[in-house]
Amino acid sequence: MSQRVREILSWYAGENPGVLTNLARMLNHGRIGGSGKMVILPVDQGFEHGPARSFAPNPAGYDPRYHFQLAIDAGCNAYAAPLGFLEAGAAEFAGDIPLILKLNNSDTLAKIEPEPAVTGSVDDALRLGACAIGFTIYPGSGSRNNMYQELRELTAEAKAKGLAVVVWSYPRGSGVSKAGETAVDVAGYAAQIAAQLGAHVIKVKPPTDHIEQPDAAKVFEAQHIPIGTLAERVRHVVQSAFDGRRVVIFSGGEAKAKEDIMAEIRGIAEGGGFGSIVGRNSFQRPKAEAVALLHEIQDVYAGAGTGAADRLLAGVAS
Amino acid sequence: MSQRVREILSWYAGENPGVLTNLARMLNHGRIGGSGKMVILPVDQGFEHGPARSFAPNPAGYDPRYHFQLAIDAGCNAYAAPLGFLEAGAAEFAGDIPLILKLNNSDTLAKIEPEPAVTGSVDDALRLGACAIGFTIYPGSGSRNNMYQELRELTAEAKAKGLAVVVWSYPRGSGVSKAGETAVDVAGYAAQIAAQLGAHVIKVKPPTDHIEQPDAAKVFEAQHIPIGTLAERVRHVVQSAFDGRRVVIFSGGEAKAKEDIMAEIRGIAEGGGFGSIVGRNSFQRPKAEAVALLHEIQDVYAGAGTGAADRLLAGVAS
Amino acid sequence: MSQRVREILSWYAGENPGVLTNLARMLNHGRIGGSGKMVILPVDQGFEHGPARSFAPNPAGYDPRYHFQLAIDAGCNAYAAPLGFLEAGAAEFAGDIPLILKLNNSDTLAKIEPEPAVTGSVDDALRLGACAIGFTIYPGSGSRNNMYQELRELTAEAKAKGLAVVVWSYPRGSGVSKAGETAVDVAGYAAQIAAQLGAHVIKVKPPTDHIEQPDAAKVFEAQHIPIGTLAERVRHVVQSAFDGRRVVIFSGGEAKAKEDIMAEIRGIAEGGGFGSIVGRNSFQRPKAEAVALLHEIQDVYAGAGTGAADRLLAGVAS
Amino acid sequence: MSQRVREILSWYAGENPGVLTNLARMLNHGRIGGSGKMVILPVDQGFEHGPARSFAPNPAGYDPRYHFQLAIDAGCNAYAAPLGFLEAGAAEFAGDIPLILKLNNSDTLAKIEPEPAVTGSVDDALRLGACAIGFTIYPGSGSRNNMYQELRELTAEAKAKGLAVVVWSYPRGSGVSKAGETAVDVAGYAAQIAAQLGAHVIKVKPPTDHIEQPDAAKVFEAQHIPIGTLAERVRHVVQSAFDGRRVVIFSGGEAKAKEDIMAEIRGIAEGGGFGSIVGRNSFQRPKAEAVALLHEIQDVYAGAGTGAADRLLAGVAS
Amino acid sequence: MSQRVREILSWYAGENPGVLTNLARMLNHGRIGGSGKMVILPVDQGFEHGPARSFAPNPAGYDPRYHFQLAIDAGCNAYAAPLGFLEAGAAEFAGDIPLILKLNNSDTLAKIEPEPAVTGSVDDALRLGACAIGFTIYPGSGSRNNMYQELRELTAEAKAKGLAVVVWSYPRGSGVSKAGETAVDVAGYAAQIAAQLGAHVIKVKPPTDHIEQPDAAKVFEAQHIPIGTLAERVRHVVQSAFDGRRVVIFSGGEAKAKEDIMAEIRGIAEGGGFGSIVGRNSFQRPKAEAVALLHEIQDVYAGAGTGAADRLLAGVAS
Repeated sequence: MSQRVREILSWYAGENPGVLTNLARMLNHGRIGGSGKMVILPVDQGFEHGPARSFAPNPAGYDPRYHFQLAIDAGCNAYAAPLGFLEAGAAEFAGDIPLILKLNNSDTLAKIEPEPAVTGSVDDALRLGACAIGFTIYPGSGSRNNMYQELRELTAEAKAKGLAVVVWSYPRGSGVSKAGETAVDVAGYAAQIAAQLGAHVIKVKPPTDHIEQPDAAKVFEAQHIPIGTLAERVRHVVQSAFDGRRVVIFSGGEAKAKEDIMAEIRGIAEGGGFGSIVGRNSFQRPKAEAVALLHEIQDVYAGAGTGAADRLLAGVAS
Repeated sequence: MSQRVREILSWYAGENPGVLTNLARMLNHGRIGGSGKMVILPVDQGFEHGPARSFAPNPAGYDPRYHFQLAIDAGCNAYAAPLGFLEAGAAEFAGDIPLILKLNNSDTLAKIEPEPAVTGSVDDALRLGACAIGFTIYPGSGSRNNMYQELRELTAEAKAKGLAVVVWSYPRGSGVSKAGETAVDVAGYAAQIAAQLGAHVIKVKPPTDHIEQPDAAKVFEAQHIPIGTLAERVRHVVQSAFDGRRVVIFSGGEAKAKEDIMAEIRGIAEGGGFGSIVGRNSFQRPKAEAVALLHEIQDVYAGAGTGAADRLLAGVAS
Repeated sequence: MSQRVREILSWYAGENPGVLTNLARMLNHGRIGGSGKMVILPVDQGFEHGPARSFAPNPAGYDPRYHFQLAIDAGCNAYAAPLGFLEAGAAEFAGDIPLILKLNNSDTLAKIEPEPAVTGSVDDALRLGACAIGFTIYPGSGSRNNMYQELRELTAEAKAKGLAVVVWSYPRGSGVSKAGETAVDVAGYAAQIAAQLGAHVIKVKPPTDHIEQPDAAKVFEAQHIPIGTLAERVRHVVQSAFDGRRVVIFSGGEAKAKEDIMAEIRGIAEGGGFGSIVGRNSFQRPKAEAVALLHEIQDVYAGAGTGAADRLLAGVAS
Repeated sequence: MSQRVREILSWYAGENPGVLTNLARMLNHGRIGGSGKMVILPVDQGFEHGPARSFAPNPAGYDPRYHFQLAIDAGCNAYAAPLGFLEAGAAEFAGDIPLILKLNNSDTLAKIEPEPAVTGSVDDALRLGACAIGFTIYPGSGSRNNMYQELRELTAEAKAKGLAVVVWSYPRGSGVSKAGETAVDVAGYAAQIAAQLGAHVIKVKPPTDHIEQPDAAKVFEAQHIPIGTLAERVRHVVQSAFDGRRVVIFSGGEAKAKEDIMAEIRGIAEGGGFGSIVGRNSFQRPKAEAVALLHEIQDVYAGAGTGAADRLLAGVAS
Repeated sequence: MSQRVREILSWYAGENPGVLTNLARMLNHGRIGGSGKMVILPVDQGFEHGPARSFAPNPAGYDPRYHFQLAIDAGCNAYAAPLGFLEAGAAEFAGDIPLILKLNNSDTLAKIEPEPAVTGSVDDALRLGACAIGFTIYPGSGSRNNMYQELRELTAEAKAKGLAVVVWSYPRGSGVSKAGETAVDVAGYAAQIAAQLGAHVIKVKPPTDHIEQPDAAKVFEAQHIPIGTLAERVRHVVQSAFDGRRVVIFSGGEAKAKEDIMAEIRGIAEGGGFGSIVGRNSFQRPKAEAVALLHEIQDVYAGAGTGAADRLLAGVAS
């Protein structure tokens, strides 16, 4: 195993060897396996945004098997999806790609204070051969406590059973403004909350230079925390997750032009982000294009990781 | 064991030996171990106030290991933090400092009637080697019953498994005014409620001379309860916790000048307070300065405790 | 065992021998043990009203052990208190006085529709050696169902484990006026509800001659139910609790002059009340005075009970 | 409570107040209540030896209610019996006498390595209002482990629910000779085993001067342990139960002449035994005679206990 | 914490922080705390050999409190005993000495294939504030599987709840000869079995130069494994426990002369043993003599441990 992966695992000392094994499975898999960076394919948009919005731009994606194959072909570290999508391919692709079972999901039909439904179990994750559970929390929601508490119980169970825990921490709800959802102070706060709740891998949105909370604004100013560039903001968010001792990755957001994506990826990599989780920008493109894009993204991250080059050169298998 | 610690343990007769052992572990540890006084380092502000507000003034504190080391270097009796912070260091620092796992936490993003989420379990506390669970209640909140009832269940389980129970009793919510949160009558009431709920160690804020409740005001006047000085007010609060037969400690509050802190500490010590739990005023200072401050605070308390001098002189190990 | 106690136990045929044993323990204990009457010391005011309002008039009462000793010295049938107060003395006074663990409590800080928090469990009662659980319901509260349903579950568990059930039935909340809280029709109704919920011992407030419900007023008038004197009103309330086949006792209310108390006690005794539960009027007086008052109250009740005289004359121990 | 009972309870520090309360109930009840000595009526012979052998000599004893009344009339500290016998009278005599529910029993029909069947539960004891569970172990039996392990589980549950634990420790089975069953070394060993298993009250047979184990014989000789008189042997057995810090009582054995019984009782009392548990010698005599005998036995023990005289003189009720 | 203790803890990476904390508590406590060596006082002989054989030579030991005090006065790392002995002192000595609750025990009365009874639970260990559970296995017994399987279940539970596991591995039963019980091949095998079953600390008897198994004898000869001196044999046993990466300590055996004891201790220390667990040779001597002997033993071990001298010189408290 590369020194860098070993170093990362050392941050989770105290977790049992099963958890470490599953973290290592994801960190060591795919084109940049061993670099300490991760590029993950997530496909929960069918549930979250509806099928037409998600799959009509590239109808091959209506078939759940498409996404397994895409993640494999693109050499991703892992593939994350809700219960139904994983059940529809986990047998066929067993052993081909680390899986993350997303255990809660929202649809956009109900108009409620944001709170996803728990749609899977830790036992489902074991049954499907997943390496990790995934879970979304919405800091800022009036229903925050329900999510935190559900996560706490699922995390305890997952860890006891040797699974890793990946948390989507997306501020949302009556407590934050629309701009505040991606404000740099709020993004850092969201990363901190996920880490305090015991997450091993934390997914946040790329932060903007907006500052939502007046009390935080005073501190950013007084302490001269630089937030002018995306790299600076990413650095703050990564620091907010236990001084960089938790794996923080960034979502790709809505579909956009390739140059915009790559600029964002470079910013994240420069700021010390641990990788990306790229959904719509992958599966809404034609497959060859998507694979090429994901490779390009991986190359940016591999360049930032000292172990990656060695590994790629040596052709060492995970 | 010092006579004073034995006397304190006698107040908890009826608890099982495991609970007594863990109380003793905290009372006996650190620079003033054995004096019957306690100085605790709590670091839950990352969760409660956000990482920038908490750690930017002294960025070393973004790293969870920093606080373990600070508590050790400063000779504190214990270190209290939420799940993620303890998980991030409990293996590395195993056996070096008694731990208190805070089992519920709030963030400031959601705008709800104050109610923390339960973010850990008694089994987590055992798994992490903690001596005690910590829990926050907000008397005055419309969600009070949820907190009291969660605490009741966690307390029963913790005691059955030999752990001590530390309660943060912070009046807050629609039932109390801003001034009322630290009013002397409310602080005494908060201490009483925590004691009635079965807490072994109770943490309240230093009380002001404001009186919030009209019915209480009449009694304070009629009975000539002195509240002119901090020491007098602390005495009332300590008396309110079973006539001083529960360990009541006081929070340090927001960051302030050292002279102000020390004046407050002397007031607490003079009034019979059992110690302090000093977060921001510790970890937001440079480490050497923080250690010096905590030592100075400990010296004040040690001076107030008859067992302390003996112990320090005799160099007796815990 | 006296004939009267045996007769009272016969009202609870169908309950298991454990429940009967614990009812007998309370009925047989103390100065009027065996008379079929009960005088109980309850001290939950520290939680319900705050410590200063409760204990400042007689500061010895800040110490939980004071109330155990007071109940013992006064020869009460039982002592009732919340978890913390019982935990603080149950080991030291083990076997000296029957205990009632109050399983729910309110504070006056939160401004909510009246609903106490559940603050203890049936297993706590067993662990502390209590003879009974106590529980408060607020008929008239919009949160009534929560309380009734919690009581139902706790009652089922307590009875299965051989404990007696004492219910404080205090009309309160948005459904009743201030005057209605002690109206004679409402007091009778409160006693009936507690009995229907399975209570063995029911505590209500002494009723006034106010009638709260118009429909009830018509019946009181049509049926010429006498309510002119306290004795008459007490008779109605006792009749409302299964025609006197449930033990109904009356609270002492706020502190007042001794003559007023004794006049009230005589009214209750004359009306067939089964006894009193006297808190503030006991522990807010100096101890000797409190003991003398409680003895005087007991003497009134003992005079009203045919078994009492025999017993006191014969000096039979329980 | 008498100083002596309080002293005895102090030996069980660490047990919860419920356990202490139930121990106190037994120690404080009856004619010698408060003396620290106990005389208990046990009637399990119907199960253990069969009804004719047990009850034909005094046919009134076929009726389970007879034994409740006998224990009450004789002023015993407690009455112990199997499930059926207690179920047949516990409601009628609720509150009149502390009960011990024997949770395992053997009959003499099966020819097996000695091992009683578990015939009741801790919840049965609660349901019947018992103060304690009783349990028989047969050290020396090849089935020893089953008994020890059943006892361990029942003891843990009983203590958690506030009940005391009384253990009949009767060496028997393929590992000991007939003479060895009452050998002084084996009796001491049996008392030690019961104490190590967590018993509060231990019942053994009066020891003879036979020594069963060769290794023990060497020690008795080398250390000059006196075993010439019953008092000396009782002293050794009591010492063997944690240096006298567990309540050890002695069985009466088979029916015999009154003078023989009283001589034995005097020996036990002189040797520091805590009392007797007298079955056949009580209930196989006519009732008046049995009551007189039990009173005489109690008088011997009361004379040996410093608290007893005070208590009897003062007429203090338990 | 000393480097040596940290090194020892590193052998148990993968265990949760609670287990590491409790191992550290024992390794850090007492006169040689921090040296990586351990001297433990075990007192289960009352159960295992009977009270007279155990305590008559020094009758103070009949009182369970004596052994707590002896372990404290002698500065031992821990005190190990069965349930009853720990229950009889754990409250009084809470916090004074790390405790090991022995969860199974045999008496010598039954004549059965060796198999102890399970006499306590993991929850008992938590309730009593113990750092570890202790458990005896008898490799060579026909009932071996029962013991191994009970141990496996208890170990899993203990570790999940943060407790350390100490295994007494004593070959015995129909599968080994009397000489074979301490044969060097069998002792090494016993240590290996305990380690494979998940033990953290392993207790074996000092090995003789007898070789029990013919197949093992061939290997000892072929590989020229030196077994001429005790030090050589101890080295083989320690190597057999994961190449010295498990803490292996040696029993003191039956009472003997001080010179014989010290010669044995020097052999164990020279061979790399981690310490001793000395029962009869401690508590059967007069207390002052026992304390002196235990100090002398500790001095031998401290001299063999690099951390010990530093620690003792610096007077660093655990």
